Amino acid sequence: MFTSRPVGFVSSPYKDASQVPKGLGAKHEADGVLAVLPEFEAGLTDIEGFSHLVVLWEFDRSHGFELLGTPPSDNRAHGVFATRSPRRPNPIGLTIVELLRREGCELHVRGVDMLDATPVLDIKPLLSGVAAEKLRRGWLAEAEARKSAGPVLP
Amino acid sequence: MFTSRPVGFVSSPYKDASQVPKGLGAKHEADGVLAVLPEFEAGLTDIEGFSHLVVLWEFDRSHGFELLGTPPSDNRAHGVFATRSPRRPNPIGLTIVELLRREGCELHVRGVDMLDATPVLDIKPLLSGVAAEKLRRGWLAEAEARKSAGPVLP
Repeated sequence: MFTSRPVGFVSSPYKDASQVPKGLGAKHEADGVLAVLPEFEAGLTDIEGFSHLVVLWEFDRSHGFELLGTPPSDNRAHGVFATRSPRRPNPIGLTIVELLRREGCELHVRGVDMLDATPVLDIKPLLSGVAAEKLRRGWLAEAEARKSAGPVLP
Repeated sequence: MFTSRPVGFVSSPYKDASQVPKGLGAKHEADGVLAVLPEFEAGLTDIEGFSHLVVLWEFDRSHGFELLGTPPSDNRAHGVFATRSPRRPNPIGLTIVELLRREGCELHVRGVDMLDATPVLDIKPLLSGVAAEKLRRGWLAEAEARKSAGPVLP
């Protein structure tokens, strides 16, 4: 068990859940900023090399959970683990964003669907799952290139 | 802020971190089981329709965090948010698994890289990022089909 702590906060155009595109065919193309707290800035080292990031965040304006619920994309109830419902046993949301640029502690990103001021719990590089021609894998691709170009050690 | 709670536990062939394939080119093809606690079983309703799941879990055998670290795939240090290091401010791991079958509270999956007995925090359906011919989207695809086939309401 651990107690969650914010490593930063989302700056988003959405001030209220009703403003977030939901349901079938909803597109998440809004620009936003992940403002990482200065004490965690060193953790962003080399993040510029990745085109897409996995953002884990806290549903901080949702309370309690329900095991069955009817999502905006259907008129039938489904299990919480088969949906993206905010009312989860652990209130963790997941969004994949495109990293546009970094400015110090600020990550300017595209594709936010979080509410403004949402606490960010974690950021991870996306290593697959985006069309190869659009995915940049930063230091990992460089390490792979160095390894394949280097001498074969016995 | 919230305090994490397990919704289940991973059954994995890996008893020790040294056994988990790591570094460049590591493949995660091990079969395992996500044993969901009976009190959360209703949350699995309709999960069988999805081919791939996002599993969030807790690095319960890792303590503290470091903002810069050298991953097994490189000999240079990178920021924690540009790596998959277990030593994170919020110790949350993420694994995408293929759902082979469900047996009651047990999800039999392929692609585990967690240690045996790792607490599961959340399970979400994967909705994109896998080759279209391999991805099944369960109730969501059905809802989309109903919507496009149904009468257009005024």
